[in-house]
Amino acid sequence: MTNWKEIDKKAKEWVNEGGQRIRESFNTTLSIQTKSNPNDLVTNMDKETEQFFIQKIKEHYPEHRILGEEGYGHKIESPEGVIWIIDPIDGTMNFVHQQRNFAISIGIYEDGIGKIGLIYDVVHNELYHAVKGEGAFMNEIPLPKLEKVSVKEAIIALNATWVAENRAIDPKVLGPLVRDSRGTRSYGTAAIELAYVAAGRLDAYITMRLAPWDYAAGLILLEEVGGVATTLKGEPINIIEKSSFLIAKEGLHEEILNGYILK
Amino acid sequence: MTNWKEIDKKAKEWVNEGGQRIRESFNTTLSIQTKSNPNDLVTNMDKETEQFFIQKIKEHYPEHRILGEEGYGHKIESPEGVIWIIDPIDGTMNFVHQQRNFAISIGIYEDGIGKIGLIYDVVHNELYHAVKGEGAFMNEIPLPKLEKVSVKEAIIALNATWVAENRAIDPKVLGPLVRDSRGTRSYGTAAIELAYVAAGRLDAYITMRLAPWDYAAGLILLEEVGGVATTLKGEPINIIEKSSFLIAKEGLHEEILNGYILK
Repeated sequence: MTNWKEIDKKAKEWVNEGGQRIRESFNTTLSIQTKSNPNDLVTNMDKETEQFFIQKIKEHYPEHRILGEEGYGHKIESPEGVIWIIDPIDGTMNFVHQQRNFAISIGIYEDGIGKIGLIYDVVHNELYHAVKGEGAFMNEIPLPKLEKVSVKEAIIALNATWVAENRAIDPKVLGPLVRDSRGTRSYGTAAIELAYVAAGRLDAYITMRLAPWDYAAGLILLEEVGGVATTLKGEPINIIEKSSFLIAKEGLHEEILNGYILK
Repeated sequence: MTNWKEIDKKAKEWVNEGGQRIRESFNTTLSIQTKSNPNDLVTNMDKETEQFFIQKIKEHYPEHRILGEEGYGHKIESPEGVIWIIDPIDGTMNFVHQQRNFAISIGIYEDGIGKIGLIYDVVHNELYHAVKGEGAFMNEIPLPKLEKVSVKEAIIALNATWVAENRAIDPKVLGPLVRDSRGTRSYGTAAIELAYVAAGRLDAYITMRLAPWDYAAGLILLEEVGGVATTLKGEPINIIEKSSFLIAKEGLHEEILNGYILK
């Protein structure tokens, strides 16, 4: 029988320790590498932090599998068993350029079901966390169930990329949503944008392509507060695949999906 | 002879006290009014905070004039003498929806010349400040002179609004810039976006319409670190008028203006 209370306690300890290591790194020089393209930066801290988590997990839970952004975990092709899905630094570009507005994101799943979600906004020291069925929290503050809003009252996380010429979506699809909503924001970190939706600070979040490590923790938080997550086609999310995302409060999700995207 | 050292000391005291009052307000219910349209919110805290500053200024510097967003100051038609330009809460929509990501912005000008700039990110407790000729700071940390970057390495603050259908600019003008830059962000507060450019966390900031209270403090910070500010036509900013804005590092400003906007 999996002891989720213990896992939650240990995961929180490791996230706090990982955050502390990252904060300390600001005093040393960062070496930066580009991954697949110049816009996809990776630093030595991304790698070191992922290896730190992997070592801890392997030591305490050798039977668990790990899916990590930097690729030091396992090759995961099916959702069986317990899987830790880790982004050591979500928002690496912010980390490099701003030394803030990035997060550690850890989602722990069992047979494809989200059990524990942790998103740690390292510099602002805000830990968003949830255990399935027990509600979501920011630090010690419970996050209330999300209330309904309409598009015209909504603040939506949506990058300008998706209404300019781009390879993923016709700019005309989301343009009217930008015009009709109360406002849009873009923070450059999916994990924090998801945490903000869960905390009611954003009403929706739309993006064309996220990987499991970007959203694994956020989806668990979101479920605890009654948010809705699908692909941009309205399909359910497959937790081990890359996907487009429409994440929103109940009602607003339907209004955006049917009134704008599938219109 | 104006005692700028004393004014700077007092302005910082008042900004800290104003910020403290705002933080305390989170425990009480906010009443919210719409100003000219539903997207332009104003709360009792905006009004109370502006009145707090005006009272302090009138008490200590009765000969100074005040231009405040909420309209409790003077009617200013020319830049003579000492003018305090105040936004008590820049980013009111964030204040209401997020209880963070807003700032107090105060710029003090003499005969149209910026002398003291203060931008206080209240919840994250970051005070960006500058006295003309003495450099800019975040809290006690000096902000270095801005280094040159190209568009392809730049992170640009640019709201999705300006690349969707809108009344101010053809979406095709800024679309290519969004595509070519390293990334875009949008925080929903001009004061913090200006402070981020001054701190080197953003490389440029583009928007269609700011009022003096949005940018008065930011321009003073920017000048201390060698940033460039013009309208979108490349014209100088008139400190008592509303204006479009292109704010960027040297070199990048020219690349954006000539390579994208005026092309």
